[in-house]
Amino acid sequence: MNFGILGAGSWGIAFGNLLRDNSQNVLIWGRRKEYVNEVNQTKRTPYLKNIRVNVPLTHDLNEFLNFTDILVIAVPVQFIREVFEKIKQFEHKIFLILNLSKGIEIKTQKRVSEIVSEFFNVPYSVLSGPSHAEEVASKIPTAVTLAGEHYEFLQKIISNDYFRVYISNDVVGVEIAGALKNVMAIAAGILDGLGGWDNSKAALMTRALYEMIKFGQYFGAKKETFFGLAGVGDLMVTCNSKHSRNRKLGELIVKEKDLSKILTNSKMVAEGMYTVKAVVDFSKKVGIEMPISNEVYEILYNGKDPKLSMLELMNRPLKNEWYI
Amino acid sequence: MNFGILGAGSWGIAFGNLLRDNSQNVLIWGRRKEYVNEVNQTKRTPYLKNIRVNVPLTHDLNEFLNFTDILVIAVPVQFIREVFEKIKQFEHKIFLILNLSKGIEIKTQKRVSEIVSEFFNVPYSVLSGPSHAEEVASKIPTAVTLAGEHYEFLQKIISNDYFRVYISNDVVGVEIAGALKNVMAIAAGILDGLGGWDNSKAALMTRALYEMIKFGQYFGAKKETFFGLAGVGDLMVTCNSKHSRNRKLGELIVKEKDLSKILTNSKMVAEGMYTVKAVVDFSKKVGIEMPISNEVYEILYNGKDPKLSMLELMNRPLKNEWYI
Repeated sequence: MNFGILGAGSWGIAFGNLLRDNSQNVLIWGRRKEYVNEVNQTKRTPYLKNIRVNVPLTHDLNEFLNFTDILVIAVPVQFIREVFEKIKQFEHKIFLILNLSKGIEIKTQKRVSEIVSEFFNVPYSVLSGPSHAEEVASKIPTAVTLAGEHYEFLQKIISNDYFRVYISNDVVGVEIAGALKNVMAIAAGILDGLGGWDNSKAALMTRALYEMIKFGQYFGAKKETFFGLAGVGDLMVTCNSKHSRNRKLGELIVKEKDLSKILTNSKMVAEGMYTVKAVVDFSKKVGIEMPISNEVYEILYNGKDPKLSMLELMNRPLKNEWYI
Repeated sequence: MNFGILGAGSWGIAFGNLLRDNSQNVLIWGRRKEYVNEVNQTKRTPYLKNIRVNVPLTHDLNEFLNFTDILVIAVPVQFIREVFEKIKQFEHKIFLILNLSKGIEIKTQKRVSEIVSEFFNVPYSVLSGPSHAEEVASKIPTAVTLAGEHYEFLQKIISNDYFRVYISNDVVGVEIAGALKNVMAIAAGILDGLGGWDNSKAALMTRALYEMIKFGQYFGAKKETFFGLAGVGDLMVTCNSKHSRNRKLGELIVKEKDLSKILTNSKMVAEGMYTVKAVVDFSKKVGIEMPISNEVYEILYNGKDPKLSMLELMNRPLKNEWYI
């Protein structure tokens, strides 16, 4: 089976190495020619320290599509449409799409499966869960959730002794959980930045789970999905891990105060900073209460004081804990 | 209202200071005379750095009981029976009991409410959730769950702007969640000790939540409780916080290998090391499958290799994620 992975960042490459370990054929497409050549030559990437890249990269989309049977999406969500527009101009033999990217498109407020269906008429699956690329690449035991079409087939191909794939039939829930946890991780990072408020962070993450469920239920997601690996599992790792870019962004905004300055100084792509825009716009439009997302938005984009924001969140007048 | 707190450890004193902030009368009973005198004199305790102790302590149980209207339990669960045996010998005017201690008595496999009912015929409530004493004492925003009798009355007295109390009617669920999360925190610490397996830890904590629910449901606990502050909230803080003694014990057992050596070298009381015994004994007796608890038990008491144990846990043959 030929897996073509769109995206040569840390997760694209780690997933490529994983598939290679499982004896699959893999080709990765990367946007920048110099980077692609460098990785092919050195078998190293700056995104994954001390890891050998075991799969070839190309920046030639035609070559990539001639090769690809199963298309794996591993580019940031905000770039997916742009890449698909390019793919449309070529012949291809893609018969299955597997999405690894977590987020919501800002300008359309669409989930990845919805973007995909605009361009392709092939089966779609999504893989999500607590799976930092750095650790998967180091073969540290990881377990994830896979939802969508042909999941049993994919489960067999992707699983091995360090990467376990559990199956689900809730594509919407897995997509929304994966997108929203990045927003919640920014909130968690903000609390870390305020000086390690562990009690507050645990309380906020508990509320975050409810907020994610409420948003998901609007689209028909199943509550159970949020209590599994793609939900609370991924929320836990993203809100606590040293690897999490979204958590890191939260920490930085407390220190630096100015988002544009942070983005200029680092090359970080923290998907949550885009997702929060889409989520806040959508939730306001349809009337879902999203207090944590709103505060993250206010802090990132309207310069609200993080400490004030978090204190306000902790002091909302709520009587019953469980209100779903 | 006169609150008598049994136990002069970090949580007893932090809770005393909290009640004092809310203008309640408080007296704390401590077992060791020298320690009680020292704290009374210096207004400091080694358990809470940089915190002034704003409430008086006594080691005189008769004085303590003459004072106490509402009895607050803040001694380790394994010592509760011993203290109650002493209290039985005195007159008292206790009309309400509030329990802060989390665990299960080894020799009887009883929860705290069950121990209490052997000695007292008064209303009982339990308070639990992500509330490390160090942070409550520093007035860092904290939210907890309170379940039991007269909870609305207690909610009003205990809540303030840095300590929010949510109410629940599931005493069994709150007690079991509070007890079991200490066991799970040892498992989390073991993964930390193995070198920061964040993906594995998130996967294991997700399974831990299921394991806690399964055990709870045997006793009629509500699933929802485990998704709230007393469940997933407390699980998150205990499994990740630098303050958690149970997590620390897990880290240490990887390094030191020998539990008795750890207990000799430190004065640490990690409730989870007792709870796991009671849980494993009970679950075997009634046939509840508790894979994580079993592995923690094997590592602590039978010298099983932690790495082997965690790899076995991650590789259990499970097909569906959500099996409750």
